[in-house]
Amino acid sequence: MKSEIVEGLESVVGSDWVVTDVDQMRDYLADETPEPVRPKSSSEVVVVKPNTTGQISKILEFANEESLSLIPRGAGTGLCGAAVPTEPGVILSLERLDEILEVDENNFTVTCEAGVTLEQLLDELKEHESLFFPPHPGDEGAQVGGLVVENAGGVRAVKYGVLRDFVRGMRVVLPTGKVLKLGGKVVKNNTGLDLMQLMIGSEGILGIVTEVTLRLYPRPKQGVSLLVPFEDRHSAVGTVPKILQRGVIPLAIEYMERDLVERSCEHIGESWPAEEGEAYLFVIVTGNTEDNVYSQCETIDEVCKDQGADRMLFADRRRDRDKLLDIRSNIYTALEPDSADILDVTVPPSRTGELMDEVDRVAEEFDVYIPAYGHVGDGNLHPHIMKENDEAPPATEEIKEKIYQIAIDLGGVITGEHGIGKTRVKNLPQVLVGKHVDLMRGIKKIFDPNGIINPGTVVDSDES
Amino acid sequence: MKSEIVEGLESVVGSDWVVTDVDQMRDYLADETPEPVRPKSSSEVVVVKPNTTGQISKILEFANEESLSLIPRGAGTGLCGAAVPTEPGVILSLERLDEILEVDENNFTVTCEAGVTLEQLLDELKEHESLFFPPHPGDEGAQVGGLVVENAGGVRAVKYGVLRDFVRGMRVVLPTGKVLKLGGKVVKNNTGLDLMQLMIGSEGILGIVTEVTLRLYPRPKQGVSLLVPFEDRHSAVGTVPKILQRGVIPLAIEYMERDLVERSCEHIGESWPAEEGEAYLFVIVTGNTEDNVYSQCETIDEVCKDQGADRMLFADRRRDRDKLLDIRSNIYTALEPDSADILDVTVPPSRTGELMDEVDRVAEEFDVYIPAYGHVGDGNLHPHIMKENDEAPPATEEIKEKIYQIAIDLGGVITGEHGIGKTRVKNLPQVLVGKHVDLMRGIKKIFDPNGIINPGTVVDSDES
Repeated sequence: MKSEIVEGLESVVGSDWVVTDVDQMRDYLADETPEPVRPKSSSEVVVVKPNTTGQISKILEFANEESLSLIPRGAGTGLCGAAVPTEPGVILSLERLDEILEVDENNFTVTCEAGVTLEQLLDELKEHESLFFPPHPGDEGAQVGGLVVENAGGVRAVKYGVLRDFVRGMRVVLPTGKVLKLGGKVVKNNTGLDLMQLMIGSEGILGIVTEVTLRLYPRPKQGVSLLVPFEDRHSAVGTVPKILQRGVIPLAIEYMERDLVERSCEHIGESWPAEEGEAYLFVIVTGNTEDNVYSQCETIDEVCKDQGADRMLFADRRRDRDKLLDIRSNIYTALEPDSADILDVTVPPSRTGELMDEVDRVAEEFDVYIPAYGHVGDGNLHPHIMKENDEAPPATEEIKEKIYQIAIDLGGVITGEHGIGKTRVKNLPQVLVGKHVDLMRGIKKIFDPNGIINPGTVVDSDES
Repeated sequence: MKSEIVEGLESVVGSDWVVTDVDQMRDYLADETPEPVRPKSSSEVVVVKPNTTGQISKILEFANEESLSLIPRGAGTGLCGAAVPTEPGVILSLERLDEILEVDENNFTVTCEAGVTLEQLLDELKEHESLFFPPHPGDEGAQVGGLVVENAGGVRAVKYGVLRDFVRGMRVVLPTGKVLKLGGKVVKNNTGLDLMQLMIGSEGILGIVTEVTLRLYPRPKQGVSLLVPFEDRHSAVGTVPKILQRGVIPLAIEYMERDLVERSCEHIGESWPAEEGEAYLFVIVTGNTEDNVYSQCETIDEVCKDQGADRMLFADRRRDRDKLLDIRSNIYTALEPDSADILDVTVPPSRTGELMDEVDRVAEEFDVYIPAYGHVGDGNLHPHIMKENDEAPPATEEIKEKIYQIAIDLGGVITGEHGIGKTRVKNLPQVLVGKHVDLMRGIKKIFDPNGIINPGTVVDSDES
């Protein structure tokens, strides 16, 4: 990286916080995408670690003047290359903005800097027994800023929604260096076009979120987990709307099949507690009183029996609940090393069964193993396209396109959680009409006239 | 209106659906703003009533070619002049797009055309006993499209949120005539910048929403209303977070004072059931079982007693609940005829008491009556600036600015529900920095390059 640039950055943050050594920046050059995008040459990349919004503003002013590419980076837990540079430029790491600024028990909000990790936030909230932050995307190492700009989802969206539903306010540095405060602790806000909503899920192409105010909920006092075995997929999936129609909204409704839970069990050295069944609903129910939780469980039991379920396993002890959740969570980690890509196609929830059937047909057609599991309460499925002999199947791109098209044809979208990032920009025309992409490009240009932040992410920079 | 324009519109919708007669269009020239904005001359206004998205697309193409101002109009229940023309142009009424297209019991959605009224939607849902559409802004005559583009709020946001939280998908006609489908029935969607979120609350300046897919909830089976008298305002308001901290989230938590409920009672010929108290919390609790609802009520009773409340009135019979709700709802109608303006300032909920005190101080300073009531669970207050001898106080604008500033200084915003529309554009610089307004203007231009839709709404069209 040119010395004027390094010096320019050092003049803002001090020389301790600018990394030019290739070995020291290795962790910043990929995310968790199985086949990650990479910079062409890491010698033309520099990592800068500011620790205030003011420093970030100065860095952006500098980058804007010098027309430098600038990639904002959280913890790098993303799955679409949004936080990874593919061309020469500056990686702006938010890790030093790691302070939880305020927990407001009366307004049910927490305000923190963007680099605070989910783990740190959850730890802090242990000190506040009445408060609860429901979202739980897989990785607690993820940073709050990243969760917001990627609009993270996870298993608990059935009851509480996705990250978007939790953002009350934020501080943003625009690509020109200007700082905007959006929202606040208010619950209702109709003061003009909602730029905050536009920032949520924008994957760092419109500005850098440096501070976030998140909504909290009262902490439910009771919770149990249920494992419901079914003999087949469609009975399991078809049960979900019937549970909701009875007025019960569980915290989570996950779907998994026997081969995957057994693989996960093997991976973590556990045993699968259900003798019966091939297809499982894993349901987490919460409430404030034992009576309330048990009454929800009874309703679920009735509905599931009506739908032909085998005997439901009931886990109310912490240890048993954690074990089930661990097995579910580790499906990902068990499959991940052998995955060529991990998808997150999303359809109207009632069509999840059809989506799974169609994914199986694609697997058969290409003779590739594509196990799938997911958030069946949200219609959000995670098919893993598996490697063969440590190699991505040659047809990986074609397989992805087919699975995307299936989701689209079922009334769905190509990504419900992970985002477009850099790896799926080429697939956007499959799901969005040209005018839609043009509008996105136009908005990008309004925020970032010189196209410095995160180029090649979400939309390509060419105006076609 | 020039005959070429009338003929052009007639060629799209037929001559029955183009109104040029000034008497017949009177209802289209105002909304419910107490001192409404008005077109300078109604002879230069024409009302067109298409009944399909295709017709709307053609009308917009025509308007765009002819550089005509075009004002989308729902039921005209707004309170900021968004749906009212102030210059020559075409009023596009959505009243004939009045079909409910689908109720999907398995995906918990309803899809309807933009002109469907809230009343019509609620009637339809009576046929589906497991389904519930929670939002309830005051006026059931409001149309769904208007509710969405104004991001309507209302009393039930405490538990279920505002309109934004209910929109899953929409069809939009852009000012150029192009039709976009945004979202769908999916629960999670991270497919690019979220233009649907940008449309919500955009007050008809970016495009015309012609169809909406809304999220539904399971219908709670039980409900009771509680009226809790307090001797003073701050004890009442201070009780709200304490209820939430105990894990109870009521459907609604409203605040009202004795003088206003008595005025409302007189207006509708009812009697106020509470002998005690000067300040009241009106709380609606819902749940699936009697036990669950009573246990929530017990918790609320405990908390309120701790905060010095008088004896709580408990209404579980339909008739008693409706009476309380009626009295609350008719505060608005009782005050409305004598109101010079109705505000909807919003602050972090815990600061609602301070906001009310400050509003009282402004009333005293200007010697004007400014009664206030509101959604205390959301920090959303409705101060009415009252007329004197049928005239708006001369200082009305100054009073509004002062009240806006108070809300801003308490960490709030100038509008939580009603929007900016045309009447508050001049107040935007008070709450948003110049760069923020510039970005809004830029986005408007991306969507509407010729500035034809709803000019002078939300942002002025001058680039300053």
